[in-house]
Amino acid sequence: MKTETTIQGLSASLNPARTARKSIGFVPTMGNLHQGHLNLVREAKKLCDVVVVSIFVNPIQFGPNEDFDSYPRTLEQDQRLLAEVGCDIVFAPSVEQMYGNSPRLTNITVSDITNDLCGLQRPGHFDGVAVVVTKLFNIVQPNFAFFGEKDYQQLAVIRQFVRDLNMPLEVMGVAIARAEDGLALSSRNGYLSEENRQKAPTIYQSLKAAEQSLQAGTALADVLANIKATLTQAGFVVDYVEARTPALQKMDAFDQDVVLFIAAKLGATRLIDNLKVKHI
Amino acid sequence: MKTETTIQGLSASLNPARTARKSIGFVPTMGNLHQGHLNLVREAKKLCDVVVVSIFVNPIQFGPNEDFDSYPRTLEQDQRLLAEVGCDIVFAPSVEQMYGNSPRLTNITVSDITNDLCGLQRPGHFDGVAVVVTKLFNIVQPNFAFFGEKDYQQLAVIRQFVRDLNMPLEVMGVAIARAEDGLALSSRNGYLSEENRQKAPTIYQSLKAAEQSLQAGTALADVLANIKATLTQAGFVVDYVEARTPALQKMDAFDQDVVLFIAAKLGATRLIDNLKVKHI
Repeated sequence: MKTETTIQGLSASLNPARTARKSIGFVPTMGNLHQGHLNLVREAKKLCDVVVVSIFVNPIQFGPNEDFDSYPRTLEQDQRLLAEVGCDIVFAPSVEQMYGNSPRLTNITVSDITNDLCGLQRPGHFDGVAVVVTKLFNIVQPNFAFFGEKDYQQLAVIRQFVRDLNMPLEVMGVAIARAEDGLALSSRNGYLSEENRQKAPTIYQSLKAAEQSLQAGTALADVLANIKATLTQAGFVVDYVEARTPALQKMDAFDQDVVLFIAAKLGATRLIDNLKVKHI
Repeated sequence: MKTETTIQGLSASLNPARTARKSIGFVPTMGNLHQGHLNLVREAKKLCDVVVVSIFVNPIQFGPNEDFDSYPRTLEQDQRLLAEVGCDIVFAPSVEQMYGNSPRLTNITVSDITNDLCGLQRPGHFDGVAVVVTKLFNIVQPNFAFFGEKDYQQLAVIRQFVRDLNMPLEVMGVAIARAEDGLALSSRNGYLSEENRQKAPTIYQSLKAAEQSLQAGTALADVLANIKATLTQAGFVVDYVEARTPALQKMDAFDQDVVLFIAAKLGATRLIDNLKVKHI
């Protein structure tokens, strides 16, 4: 496994694969890798000849009061884990390598589907994601790119701009990886105190309970209210509990497949999760 | 020479060239081709193995009161001209092929350098250019793309988003092609009455006179005022006469290379031109 820190180095490393018309799989990450990321790499390995994983904590997707500076950076450990799952090339550029010294004047916006859920609390976040993912796609030029369904809205935004701009690659969504107690894996779980780590699976439990209630006929609004009550009682500060169609449109009743979305804080740590509930 | 009207057809036509790692040159146009466009194709032929020319009148770069509906569409004549200069593939998609049936949610904006000159009178114009050019780049995946320097601001905008987004291609600017009397070639020249066609070269004449004045020591502000007076007296309605650095920054004095920009209307026809004046 090679590690490249420059765009030029990466291009040189990928050139033999491109010349041989090998398929390139790409997994963009911010590092501090867990089994969720490694599952993305495993999926990429199944489908592609060469797998590139980027590790880049992207400053422009963090708000001014968010955790850019404290976001965990664990490159050596990440490299070890990636080598174990068969990653071929790690791309770990500096901020300067990615954004250079002259000011960036270009922005990419996706309207409508970025207006609520995480978009409400994190203005500009998805613009920052769209710009860095586009840059990385143009640098790596993959045939397939892999993203986790935990960041469901992010995945929808990426699918949207890839389609709208005719980017020549396929976006693959991969199911959420969970701890044994159901907590969705996230680099931010490491911020939790031991006590809060015990409470955190309540998010997933409330989603699974909601699934049962919905399929037993409880009204959607009541189910959402129940999740909110459960989380608040368990000590969460709820950011949102929402129901959307798989295409992220609002819905009032459980008359088609629904995705339930939760964002909630435990102490200073914001956790998100989602669950798709089939309409039977 | 092949003509393709679908993205799939174009991909199939380009696939042998891609597999053979041949270099692809791309000239995006809105058709109604003149020698200016053909010069772009000739430059592309010099540098690239395969040359693709797109002909697409892009609705989203026209304002509501602009000439989208009446913009000249002359595909057969264009095909004949392109065959003569050795174009390999014409890509002439429909609006539906380019924008599909589901709504586009993604926009690309370039700030700062789009705020004045043509950006002032044509809000959203450069967003529309950025989106369609990005789509075409992703569809054609060229190594080199060729644009005329007549649309100087457009060329600067394209260079900017290509750099900001790490698009894997090189943007080539090609000098303005002019009629014998100096008028910059443009599809919109065909709108001019015979009388106005006689007057139109005043734009270029005033730019050349300004070059002489500047190099003889006349102050920049006076030179700009003179152009404006000359054009107004000749019957133009001046939109702007401006001086910018080659990077499109404002400047007050002729203390470095300057680009002089004119946009002016003759009847209903808006003409633009520019001239770079060297600081000696």
